[in-house]
Amino acid sequence: MILGIDIGGANTKIASGDGHVAETYYLPLWKSTELNKKLSLVAQRHHPSEVVVVMTGELADCFCDKKSGVRYIKKAVEDAFSTTRVTYIDVSGKLTDGCNESSLAASNWCASARFLADEFENCIFADMGSTTTDIIPIVSGTPVAHTTDLKRLLHNQLVYTGLFRTNIAALTNHVYLRNRECKIASEYFANTADIYLILMHISESSYTCETPDGGGKDLLSAKRRLARIVCADLEELADEEIYTLAEQIYKMQVEQITRSFEKIAQEYELDQIVVCGIGEFVLGQAALNAGLEATFVSERYGKKISSVFPAYAAAKIIEK
Amino acid sequence: MILGIDIGGANTKIASGDGHVAETYYLPLWKSTELNKKLSLVAQRHHPSEVVVVMTGELADCFCDKKSGVRYIKKAVEDAFSTTRVTYIDVSGKLTDGCNESSLAASNWCASARFLADEFENCIFADMGSTTTDIIPIVSGTPVAHTTDLKRLLHNQLVYTGLFRTNIAALTNHVYLRNRECKIASEYFANTADIYLILMHISESSYTCETPDGGGKDLLSAKRRLARIVCADLEELADEEIYTLAEQIYKMQVEQITRSFEKIAQEYELDQIVVCGIGEFVLGQAALNAGLEATFVSERYGKKISSVFPAYAAAKIIEK
Repeated sequence: MILGIDIGGANTKIASGDGHVAETYYLPLWKSTELNKKLSLVAQRHHPSEVVVVMTGELADCFCDKKSGVRYIKKAVEDAFSTTRVTYIDVSGKLTDGCNESSLAASNWCASARFLADEFENCIFADMGSTTTDIIPIVSGTPVAHTTDLKRLLHNQLVYTGLFRTNIAALTNHVYLRNRECKIASEYFANTADIYLILMHISESSYTCETPDGGGKDLLSAKRRLARIVCADLEELADEEIYTLAEQIYKMQVEQITRSFEKIAQEYELDQIVVCGIGEFVLGQAALNAGLEATFVSERYGKKISSVFPAYAAAKIIEK
Repeated sequence: MILGIDIGGANTKIASGDGHVAETYYLPLWKSTELNKKLSLVAQRHHPSEVVVVMTGELADCFCDKKSGVRYIKKAVEDAFSTTRVTYIDVSGKLTDGCNESSLAASNWCASARFLADEFENCIFADMGSTTTDIIPIVSGTPVAHTTDLKRLLHNQLVYTGLFRTNIAALTNHVYLRNRECKIASEYFANTADIYLILMHISESSYTCETPDGGGKDLLSAKRRLARIVCADLEELADEEIYTLAEQIYKMQVEQITRSFEKIAQEYELDQIVVCGIGEFVLGQAALNAGLEATFVSERYGKKISSVFPAYAAAKIIEK
């Protein structure tokens, strides 16, 4: 079995090319050294004949630069899969042994885009995970994205916003409340997982990151965190005010992505989009708002595959 | 000796009414239980005849609501100063024994505003600390601010932005780089202390909060953190680009405060402002931009007093 592995800063995902394996582990690189341990367990359980790796975790701020991050991730993979062939996909979408470390940084979207480019000649490909959203133009069967995060941020191809871990204070500096603009606290009091839990888009068990305050993943705790963004207790806000805040923030996140979709669509003259990731439904709404015809990876490959798509695509590329 | 104590979420400050004592301790309530211990040491060292307390720390997200936070802070103070008379200043500026816990929440600006109101009949009073900025209208010798953080956020009287701890991602979602708008990472990669260190407004030794990545407080580490907000390594950005980023963010913070100054000045028809706090120089620039005539507390009472002004003012109020 060929196993694709996508090592992000917060989550590590694995998938087999046959689709039977599709797993996500919350492994925040900046606070733990569990990566090697977890990968060793994966090696023991699945005994892959080959692994293929993409990553974004090298940006985590425990690494002094990206090369050190890539080196750490590579070592963890190669130690865990010491008897297995390990291949990497680099930022130009090529298979490599990984010797050129800088070419591996921020490579996780490359597998997905290369895999989809065979089927969708001209489209935008978008993947929204827990932390970030990739927006990749595919033109004449070739992904044409920039190849560093910095360049992608400059060109609307990386929107650093996600379904779970985005600090509400990073998404907006104000909300509307009691017919006024209300500035918010610049702390990490609440995140987008709290919003989507309150709006019932995700369940307690699918809230797969830490809570901002280390507290519960239940509805009441999420509401309490959301109230705190305006420095309030729950007793200071009516329940419908909490829902209104959550709705507003959801719309702001959709709007943020919509604007990038529009810019990419215009620049590359594209009107189709393929969306995937745990935030697929957010991307679907943004696609609708941007007037793009959307294809949902979850409808074609299943929801589990959609949520680990870079890992799945990496495995499929090797299988060919 | 009468000791004023200002217990914030991140910092606890003490000052004596005679100005000889003026100390700041970084004691983040959400991650440590050192408050009681530190206050006990203060009690042993200074043997005050009386202590007077203001606070904002009850908002820290380790407390499930503000009352619990106030209760925790009160207990820490009263245990540490068990043989000393303890008085509180409440949100209406009155001296109290603290039985009404909700009236003590977010009271730290009340002491400063009440103390200054005797001298400045009509002015704005503004205090910028590590985390937040208070903007208090004083009209006919009376502070007329709203008395909860929520209401103050709604009315431009609390700007949740500070000299050290403000996440750059909470201050702005984009910067200008290479003649383009560049979106930034929504992580806690860099803070305002990094900006002010790079711009040489603060020194390594006055960087009195933790760094976002737990790394060094030296210039190189700060630049590395700032580069990461656009997902870059230092090798991807020229040194002058780093400085340009820092300058932009400084200007955005000044602009954010300027706008609130303008709104308050207009609403209450005020043209004078008294500024204090470790961020006094930022407020001075914002006052200039807003066309207000500024008085600097540091010029009148010294820089040390300016940085612990709520504690000093609390002590002075009792002395009268």
